[in-house]
Amino acid sequence: MAVIFSSVRTDGDNGYGAMAQAMFDLASTQPGFLGAEDAREDIGITVSYWRDEAAAQAWKQVAAHLVAQRRGRDHWYSDYRVRVAQVLREYSRTDSELK
Amino acid sequence: MAVIFSSVRTDGDNGYGAMAQAMFDLASTQPGFLGAEDAREDIGITVSYWRDEAAAQAWKQVAAHLVAQRRGRDHWYSDYRVRVAQVLREYSRTDSELK
Repeated sequence: MAVIFSSVRTDGDNGYGAMAQAMFDLASTQPGFLGAEDAREDIGITVSYWRDEAAAQAWKQVAAHLVAQRRGRDHWYSDYRVRVAQVLREYSRTDSELK
Repeated sequence: MAVIFSSVRTDGDNGYGAMAQAMFDLASTQPGFLGAEDAREDIGITVSYWRDEAAAQAWKQVAAHLVAQRRGRDHWYSDYRVRVAQVLREYSRTDSELK
């Protein structure tokens, strides 16, 4: 599963940087976590990958993460969108070179 | 459908910026294109959204896009990964506030 989180930040840090790092570290310890990647420019995109939907759902309900989600809604994000998607296939640069 | 393209750039522009804009504009005119978002920091993430898998596949085969993909492999990306995923559900900040 891929959870695609796109967001627009409010101005200022307001504790966001520390919490983002803490959440990244905490997510990495969760059952079924496969990896994550993120980038921010005009908008931020974070994609986290999970073994299955149950694992992704469980992460959404972790207590410290619920606190972070609340603070995100209240302070850090002027807008965001979450898309939960099932990865059907993937390929890399190396795979492409083999074709 | 969501096509998640994660990439690591090589040094220098080498015509990348102009091509990236041209491909974004061209994708926007394709049948079944629903939108795209991208950000680049240490890595780049571009997610494009398509009505269905056929629309996403058709974009992959557009002639000018094939040229861009080849130049990407040869010049612009030291690494990349493509994940094709089916969006099961989505929600936004506004939806969350209603809960």
